[in-house]
Amino acid sequence: MAEFEVTPWEVSGDIDYDELMKRFGTTPIDDALIDRMRKYGEPHLLLRRKIFYSHRDLDKMLDDYEKGKGFYLYTGRGPSGMTHLGHLMPWIFTKWVQDTFGAHLYFQITDDEKFLFKDDMSLEQTKDYAYENILDIIALGFDPEKTHIFIDTEYIHHLYPIALRVAKKITFSTARAVFGFQNSSNIGQIFYTSIQSAPAFLGSVLNGRPTNCLVPCGIDQDPHFRVTRDVAPGLGYPKTTMLYCKLFPSLSGGDKMSSSSPDATIYTTDTPKKVKKKIGRAFTGGAVSVEEQRKNGGNPEVCTVYKYFYYMFEEDDKKLRQIYDECRAGERLCGQCKMELTEKINAFLQRHQENREKAKDRIEEFMLRD
Amino acid sequence: MAEFEVTPWEVSGDIDYDELMKRFGTTPIDDALIDRMRKYGEPHLLLRRKIFYSHRDLDKMLDDYEKGKGFYLYTGRGPSGMTHLGHLMPWIFTKWVQDTFGAHLYFQITDDEKFLFKDDMSLEQTKDYAYENILDIIALGFDPEKTHIFIDTEYIHHLYPIALRVAKKITFSTARAVFGFQNSSNIGQIFYTSIQSAPAFLGSVLNGRPTNCLVPCGIDQDPHFRVTRDVAPGLGYPKTTMLYCKLFPSLSGGDKMSSSSPDATIYTTDTPKKVKKKIGRAFTGGAVSVEEQRKNGGNPEVCTVYKYFYYMFEEDDKKLRQIYDECRAGERLCGQCKMELTEKINAFLQRHQENREKAKDRIEEFMLRD
Repeated sequence: MAEFEVTPWEVSGDIDYDELMKRFGTTPIDDALIDRMRKYGEPHLLLRRKIFYSHRDLDKMLDDYEKGKGFYLYTGRGPSGMTHLGHLMPWIFTKWVQDTFGAHLYFQITDDEKFLFKDDMSLEQTKDYAYENILDIIALGFDPEKTHIFIDTEYIHHLYPIALRVAKKITFSTARAVFGFQNSSNIGQIFYTSIQSAPAFLGSVLNGRPTNCLVPCGIDQDPHFRVTRDVAPGLGYPKTTMLYCKLFPSLSGGDKMSSSSPDATIYTTDTPKKVKKKIGRAFTGGAVSVEEQRKNGGNPEVCTVYKYFYYMFEEDDKKLRQIYDECRAGERLCGQCKMELTEKINAFLQRHQENREKAKDRIEEFMLRD
Repeated sequence: MAEFEVTPWEVSGDIDYDELMKRFGTTPIDDALIDRMRKYGEPHLLLRRKIFYSHRDLDKMLDDYEKGKGFYLYTGRGPSGMTHLGHLMPWIFTKWVQDTFGAHLYFQITDDEKFLFKDDMSLEQTKDYAYENILDIIALGFDPEKTHIFIDTEYIHHLYPIALRVAKKITFSTARAVFGFQNSSNIGQIFYTSIQSAPAFLGSVLNGRPTNCLVPCGIDQDPHFRVTRDVAPGLGYPKTTMLYCKLFPSLSGGDKMSSSSPDATIYTTDTPKKVKKKIGRAFTGGAVSVEEQRKNGGNPEVCTVYKYFYYMFEEDDKKLRQIYDECRAGERLCGQCKMELTEKINAFLQRHQENREKAKDRIEEFMLRD
């Protein structure tokens, strides 16, 4: 069994996603569940391809939905740097859920978290990044009537009373067991999970009645939401429904795109030239030589370029299959894949950057203020 | 040596205040220091009689003051019940400092703290008590131009960013060592000291420059402020100056008036009849019989009625001495003392209750809002 660790703050080793699901005790999203969602709209590729692959209580929430009980969406972003493709992925899926179910979305920007967990980062820096990240959220085309973005330190007067109710129900031993805190952990870190729990109940508080909440996010966030779900009944709220995705891979072959390796990370603000350069250096499943690859084929299973097609950049399942088969057969070399991916990403980023520019005048349409 | 424990949340055993000062490492307020303050105004009886008996860095703050560097005051109230005389005592002293030095006062009402530390108390209850307590603060006659009262959950958007900066500098092991947290402590309790630290730096933040802060409060609060002072230099703020008082005694002979013994506690809203009844049952230094007391005298050292004269209700030092001597000589019996104290307290409460009633229309004059 592969050695790996996944926490909300760190990923190490090669993630075995099935094993991770077992460790966390979450449920696989099976074909029957995907089929069940089909009546509301064509399943998004991230669901169809099981990038969103695990859940907690999605079936129960759909039961409620069928009985006329709506839900709201909650997801978030920790603003410790500029936005990259790995961040966009679950947000794109969240937009699909919003469009498909007409759900309101509360979008939490956790400037407090990143300040508390990043030694050398100031609150000013995390708030600056917060606004940079918000441009990317808006650029994805969320419905301004139904999307409510807030930054923790700016919206804290609404979050704090909820967070206090959560915090009162979480002992230090629970927090330590779930998050692995040490004696050297700072006391803000220990409290922080209460702040991340708060939006799971914010919709209920603002609606004045218990309301179902669906959180699409990376499976690395499950520790927070295990705690959230545990305290929910005692606070009179429904247990949060979770929809978990795998992490977006790094261009260097690692499991998680991360700003700690900027050369293996495509930012939403990267120029076409930069993207070309980064994709050019991406880790692939190619053989040691062209001759070798023509003869024995490449390995798309380990190839980051193929993964990018799979995760986001080739919507057509047939074309994706074709790329896979051509690679295996040695008919397609890495250069071709890299060129095609570069074109696709740059086309995506061109539109995104236009929308991101326009978003600068639209921030207040989306911000949840008093 | 007497066995006793003093924490911000609990007092047990008979407090040896000199020993407590040694344990905490605070400095006695000596006659030279009192004399030094005399040039600004006649020392308040609570200072003169060394009820305010210990400090941290008061001398340094006075050095600064003499060089033209002002300070602001910060004190607080944990709203877990109605206000009693024990709460008023340090506030009355704080008003004297405000009047004497023309200092601004930030008054923190910690509804979050009391919610987190009182198992059966809701946030709604602590906020209700907050407003009840605020009436008593206003009734004492603080300068509305210079007094800024805030309730934590209402003012949190200003406190939270400061609290985060504090929290990032406090490890769990420090918090556990200082406050004695257990595995069963909730994570809100562990974080809370950061919120109590915040007003010590709020004046600096609002002024836009490091500003000295003087905190008059019960010595039971020292653990919080040891932490506050430790983190101050790293945040670029001056170490908080502390002025500590002894706790106001219970009518039953205990060291601390507390709402857990309502019959031994005089609330600011008590009727004259109730006060008479409670004082009538107070623990005194009287002998077992009138004859015995006439013969051998009483013991004012252990008498709560005498302590009340000493702490608050006999301003005249000569009269106080006379009461003491008459008691010792058997010339004065407990009934007389109780009657005189009842009259004094009821006269005080009559005025206070009138002011408290008027305060209901004056709350917004004092509240620190956005």
